[in-house]
Amino acid sequence: GAQRFEANPPGFMATLPTHTLNTLNDYKEYFITEMKHPTFAQSVIAEWWATTLFLFFLILSCLPGANDGQEVFRIGIVAGLTIAILVYAFYAVSGGNINPAVSLGLALSGRMTAPRACFYIAAQIVGAITGTAMAKAVSPRAFDLGKGGMNALQTLDVDLESIAITEGQAFFAEVMGSMLLVLAVLFCTDTARSIEHPHMTALIPLEIGFVVLLAHVAMIPIDGCGINPARSIGSAAIYGSLVHLWIFVWGPVVGACFAALIYRLIFAPTEVFNEY
Amino acid sequence: GAQRFEANPPGFMATLPTHTLNTLNDYKEYFITEMKHPTFAQSVIAEWWATTLFLFFLILSCLPGANDGQEVFRIGIVAGLTIAILVYAFYAVSGGNINPAVSLGLALSGRMTAPRACFYIAAQIVGAITGTAMAKAVSPRAFDLGKGGMNALQTLDVDLESIAITEGQAFFAEVMGSMLLVLAVLFCTDTARSIEHPHMTALIPLEIGFVVLLAHVAMIPIDGCGINPARSIGSAAIYGSLVHLWIFVWGPVVGACFAALIYRLIFAPTEVFNEY
Amino acid sequence: GAQRFEANPPGFMATLPTHTLNTLNDYKEYFITEMKHPTFAQSVIAEWWATTLFLFFLILSCLPGANDGQEVFRIGIVAGLTIAILVYAFYAVSGGNINPAVSLGLALSGRMTAPRACFYIAAQIVGAITGTAMAKAVSPRAFDLGKGGMNALQTLDVDLESIAITEGQAFFAEVMGSMLLVLAVLFCTDTARSIEHPHMTALIPLEIGFVVLLAHVAMIPIDGCGINPARSIGSAAIYGSLVHLWIFVWGPVVGACFAALIYRLIFAPTEVFNEY
Amino acid sequence: GAQRFEANPPGFMATLPTHTLNTLNDYKEYFITEMKHPTFAQSVIAEWWATTLFLFFLILSCLPGANDGQEVFRIGIVAGLTIAILVYAFYAVSGGNINPAVSLGLALSGRMTAPRACFYIAAQIVGAITGTAMAKAVSPRAFDLGKGGMNALQTLDVDLESIAITEGQAFFAEVMGSMLLVLAVLFCTDTARSIEHPHMTALIPLEIGFVVLLAHVAMIPIDGCGINPARSIGSAAIYGSLVHLWIFVWGPVVGACFAALIYRLIFAPTEVFNEY
Ligand SMILES: [Ca+2]
Ligand SMILES: [Ca+2]
Ligand SMILES: [Ca+2]
Ligand SMILES: [Ca+2]
Repeated sequence: GAQRFEANPPGFMATLPTHTLNTLNDYKEYFITEMKHPTFAQSVIAEWWATTLFLFFLILSCLPGANDGQEVFRIGIVAGLTIAILVYAFYAVSGGNINPAVSLGLALSGRMTAPRACFYIAAQIVGAITGTAMAKAVSPRAFDLGKGGMNALQTLDVDLESIAITEGQAFFAEVMGSMLLVLAVLFCTDTARSIEHPHMTALIPLEIGFVVLLAHVAMIPIDGCGINPARSIGSAAIYGSLVHLWIFVWGPVVGACFAALIYRLIFAPTEVFNEY
Repeated sequence: GAQRFEANPPGFMATLPTHTLNTLNDYKEYFITEMKHPTFAQSVIAEWWATTLFLFFLILSCLPGANDGQEVFRIGIVAGLTIAILVYAFYAVSGGNINPAVSLGLALSGRMTAPRACFYIAAQIVGAITGTAMAKAVSPRAFDLGKGGMNALQTLDVDLESIAITEGQAFFAEVMGSMLLVLAVLFCTDTARSIEHPHMTALIPLEIGFVVLLAHVAMIPIDGCGINPARSIGSAAIYGSLVHLWIFVWGPVVGACFAALIYRLIFAPTEVFNEY
Repeated sequence: GAQRFEANPPGFMATLPTHTLNTLNDYKEYFITEMKHPTFAQSVIAEWWATTLFLFFLILSCLPGANDGQEVFRIGIVAGLTIAILVYAFYAVSGGNINPAVSLGLALSGRMTAPRACFYIAAQIVGAITGTAMAKAVSPRAFDLGKGGMNALQTLDVDLESIAITEGQAFFAEVMGSMLLVLAVLFCTDTARSIEHPHMTALIPLEIGFVVLLAHVAMIPIDGCGINPARSIGSAAIYGSLVHLWIFVWGPVVGACFAALIYRLIFAPTEVFNEY
Repeated sequence: GAQRFEANPPGFMATLPTHTLNTLNDYKEYFITEMKHPTFAQSVIAEWWATTLFLFFLILSCLPGANDGQEVFRIGIVAGLTIAILVYAFYAVSGGNINPAVSLGLALSGRMTAPRACFYIAAQIVGAITGTAMAKAVSPRAFDLGKGGMNALQTLDVDLESIAITEGQAFFAEVMGSMLLVLAVLFCTDTARSIEHPHMTALIPLEIGFVVLLAHVAMIPIDGCGINPARSIGSAAIYGSLVHLWIFVWGPVVGACFAALIYRLIFAPTEVFNEY
């Protein structure tokens, strides 16, 4: 497995050598080689620590402060820029996923083995819980009164009338937001495309951070913006409430599947494209 | 046509081999070759889906929320960053136009065939309608009360006095905003220039996104900021109103023509420049 | 002069071959060669049109709108991002100065001939007047009531007390803001340095735009933030008032001299550095 | 020492040749060679002047203005973008540390000699005092009424209830914020990693600026956000108050140690990684 291994540096997002993985045994052997590599444990720890840091600063920005009425920008800027700098830092370690929807999308797109994605997702969920608990430590009473930064269905106010968002509407928004994020990751990190435009790879961390920023600004007034099951599980676990949690877990899962599907079916570079 | 073809990868913005396109028949033959290429359909679908996503998040940001009085920044940030990340993603597929004014400007500048531009514009308009309808699905009543995110002439309030914007003033603003956008695209994607400064090509998606962001922040208080006929047609079609629509369709068209004209006449790299 | 010429592409910011310019006649001959080059007129027109566009959008953002109390961010974002995208576009044409302080700083640093700087500064001032007049056309009454976007000494309010800024304080702020901008330009565009870090040249337009953005956010509450004599002359000419104009003309001039001085004396790469 | 010297350009952040520095005498000899290099004095002056400029604009943004209630964004944007453009400018001179926590983190990580870090830290503290004094000169009364931009424990208001931040909570936030900043710097500037992703080095100044921006937006409502001992000492010295200063000095010191520790123990590229 060594030669195959070199073509697929573990800890990076790369196309798996699917043509050599014909049987389940091949796949198993491939993953065991991957897991024994010294960078595998480093990668899993990286996903845990990056998600811990993300949740710490994100939940801090959800604590109410002096600038009431500007939560949308405060949370959006902190979420987006924290992701940007963490993707920048951890990209060369683990790929900087920091989100189970991203790991799922990469696995479904053949860019990462399914067992690696499972390790990453577990690390992300534990990290989200760690980070939320650390943010609670900064101000436990504000954390409780601010409901632990939990995602929640909002009420749009249209001048005189108030319109409550339904569960279905929030679910739809979560699917779309997560789909945009995972689709952006699949495009950004597709080496078949980046060969044509090598300079653009410089922007990868910024582009992923900007998706997170814009999704928060657009969706916080809808449902608080989840688009990351680990983030929502972290708040739910530490604040101790499962209300509406299914929306913020399954919405991103469906969005990631949708992104992987349309990328593979429609937008992946074709053989013709590459030869061209 | 194969050799010509390779010098002009379809789906990218590149200078057409105009010196070999001497007759209408040459041009027709050239486009037929282009259209038969497997990436052509992919490009048209890309323009449809990118414009769908753009309108979905843009119209979502137009729905009134908790942060009244900050619509300018909310809409501006969502519009600008969504364009930035969609240009990043779809640049290598279709060129990431997402705006009929951009496709028109590229066609007028000899960077894209006229039939390709027509296919793109049709896909963008259908995409804008799809995306607006999807945003309406998130909250139909807020969509109606918020007038479907339609562009509209605004009233500037200067302390005690209120000053209504006229149609002519809004048209002028649309011409200028669209001209800036198309001019920026023509500069950014001019390979004759980027050869001299290859590193700067990294910023293309960001620069185009930032034009959209600044135009919205500067022009929302004037006319809501269109600068994209597809976007304005999408809102008009789903909300069902044609009021002032001509401004937001013809303003960008005039702006794109103006940009192509001054780029070709004044700012295009001259032969001398290249030889130099 | 042809060989010298090739080492110093006109229209770009580059170190002049000062060791071959021993007499005033050498210098004169050098500039005549430069001026006859077909890109010289293109460069001067570029400075005019870029400054026209900058002032149009900047003054538009100064017109009062729906979001009172957020002028600082509205003006700052529009000023900074407009500069970023115009520098990106016009960098390869004229160097994208768009500001007499920048042209002065480059001339004083031996990166541009003095006559070229004079042509640029004249074009920038005419452009600023053109752009301000165009912005006035969008809403003449709002323009008048908003005092034409003129820079003016502000009053800081510190809870109960109000503190008026003096002319000397505003002048000091203008010197510092312009110095930061010109110093950033001198660093960014120093090819002796960028050879060591070639990838960083990608960020040039963004860094210059960000200086403009941060200076506006920090200094609008002080004096409205000029840091660009052309911009301030444009407002003064079209609104028709010379009040405090000297601050916004001479402050940036002193700042540019200061930046050129400290760059040359302290921060310029030394021979030793280059050989190292 | 000349050959060793070339492998470690002074003034840049690079891995020290620790395998040749076996005795204290080797280390001493190494530093003496470094200090005699003409770029050493340039580097120390650069740290002084960069920190002066940082504090001038940062403290200016802390002076109360017309946009009450938006201090978080005003200070955050000015702090983040000023750091971004100063890192961009001074990176090739001194490494652009501008923060004792960063210099400490680099020294602890073996990227900079301890004596160089001491010179830098002294220059940064003097620079912070210079810059704060210059900002005070712009409006001495506003400076005093605004308490000199000093960091201070805040009170979160959660609708009806107000919750005061304790010293321990602020200390914890300072540790985390500084740790994120120093960790980002250690990742960004690790040449062993950037060889794998050379294009991403373009973003270094932006990523460091964005950490500063997000930390301010997240932490201003907690404790005013220090994460830079020089910045906090500058305010304390000029305003003349030592209240809570220990938090803003020792928090960043602990955060820098923590970052250096986890980077070295967990995330540094291993030998295996490099050979791979
Ligand atoms: Ca409302
Ligand atoms: Ca008003
Ligand atoms: Ca006040
Ligand atoms: Ca409150």
